Amino acid sequence: MGSQTEGANGAKVPDVVANLGFAPAVKLSGEWSVNRVLEEIPSEAPTEGSSSPIPFFHMLSRLKTTKREGWRRFGIERGESISDHMYRMSLITMFAPPALAKKLDLQKCMKMALIHDMAELLVGDITPVDGVPKTEKNRREAETMDFLTKNLLRSVAGGDVGAEIRAVWQEYEDSKTLDSHFVHDVDKIELMLQMVEYEKQGKGHVDLGEFAYVATKVTLPEMKEWADELLKERDEFWKNKEHVHGEKGLEGGVSAETSRGQDEYYERK
Amino acid sequence: MGSQTEGANGAKVPDVVANLGFAPAVKLSGEWSVNRVLEEIPSEAPTEGSSSPIPFFHMLSRLKTTKREGWRRFGIERGESISDHMYRMSLITMFAPPALAKKLDLQKCMKMALIHDMAELLVGDITPVDGVPKTEKNRREAETMDFLTKNLLRSVAGGDVGAEIRAVWQEYEDSKTLDSHFVHDVDKIELMLQMVEYEKQGKGHVDLGEFAYVATKVTLPEMKEWADELLKERDEFWKNKEHVHGEKGLEGGVSAETSRGQDEYYERK
Repeated sequence: MGSQTEGANGAKVPDVVANLGFAPAVKLSGEWSVNRVLEEIPSEAPTEGSSSPIPFFHMLSRLKTTKREGWRRFGIERGESISDHMYRMSLITMFAPPALAKKLDLQKCMKMALIHDMAELLVGDITPVDGVPKTEKNRREAETMDFLTKNLLRSVAGGDVGAEIRAVWQEYEDSKTLDSHFVHDVDKIELMLQMVEYEKQGKGHVDLGEFAYVATKVTLPEMKEWADELLKERDEFWKNKEHVHGEKGLEGGVSAETSRGQDEYYERK
Repeated sequence: MGSQTEGANGAKVPDVVANLGFAPAVKLSGEWSVNRVLEEIPSEAPTEGSSSPIPFFHMLSRLKTTKREGWRRFGIERGESISDHMYRMSLITMFAPPALAKKLDLQKCMKMALIHDMAELLVGDITPVDGVPKTEKNRREAETMDFLTKNLLRSVAGGDVGAEIRAVWQEYEDSKTLDSHFVHDVDKIELMLQMVEYEKQGKGHVDLGEFAYVATKVTLPEMKEWADELLKERDEFWKNKEHVHGEKGLEGGVSAETSRGQDEYYERK
């Protein structure tokens, strides 16, 4: 049965079982394509063109097993998944401040929060430090969304839900509407919430100030208020202790190279 | 810094950091109350009555760090969180078959999928084998939902979003409307998807047939079709191998006691 780990109840559990729920991102050398990734995960390769949505539902499981890379770089091995992140974003959309809410299609914003990172189920969570140009990241994500919505979902309910998912994702990518600007800001607020929580729960052993930088990329005034509230909460936690003031960008401890990468990733088009 | 683990990049990481993202459920002896749980997690105790939703958003983080207990009992240590489960459920609601969809309020169903297990952020994921009577489980969950929506959210946007969350949760609990019956079925379909995925990825080292039993509790004909499709997929995987036919209840390897507990938990009221 190969190597074993001690499980919750003291019984020995094979590692293959203990690690279920964590799937490392597929790394390819050479050109990236959906088909090449699917060849690497044969046990999960889905049936295309089914009239049932179940093959698509199975693909979504990869959002649970793919972890957010930003935290993993800091040694957080049991951290949140992509779907954990999108889950909280969807709840946050329900709390758009009233003056803003009346200008938004909140139902669409909730769906956008749930869909915006869906392509990461095959692409993985590429971060500013991975050295993949943003245009290439976008190409991989668009190819994945086409695969999901055109190959897997084309025969499900006449393809309508697939087309809706594809359109909502594209609106987020294009980042030209108020709805998409709101969800981009919610994405950053959710990251900042998690940053502050990990730092507090880590009792000062982990400094995630590099991520505080995203506060500078929040654009809507109502969302800036939340970002400021979170930065204040963070300062309160770290006061009198040395820490990375990520919110100050270059001056605060983030290298010039990291900062340029962040600029490229977090700047709204 | 206490005990250390080897991180992803080979560097030593303190366990307190490596384990961020996993919070064991708070176990109390004696009477259960929200206040007694909050006393056990002082670093996360929220500000009540704030006009900002941020204390509530912080509480939601516990849905990411609380893992689904059913899988943990089988030694799946890195498995999905409560929010992972609710995430996929919300996407599934978008695929209600057309004949059913026209009778549903799909926007509400999506919210219900995102809210129905919210109380577990303080209550934990109580399963049929935990020995907590269902009435007591319901009491704890209702107390938690009151705390979240009346204490934490009462001053946020006039309390309106809190009241909506409380009402949607109650509709799921009461299980008297078609919308709630649909989401109850989606809950079971999501569990069955995950069961089949863990079994396949576990390469036959873990038999989760006990959970296949929930297929018998799916009530809407359209959802029964999906459940049957999943049972067929499962049988295909296990064919010619000995395994628990959970779908057959008592005959199939689930003890009489477990089966009674499951009946109580999964029966729609």
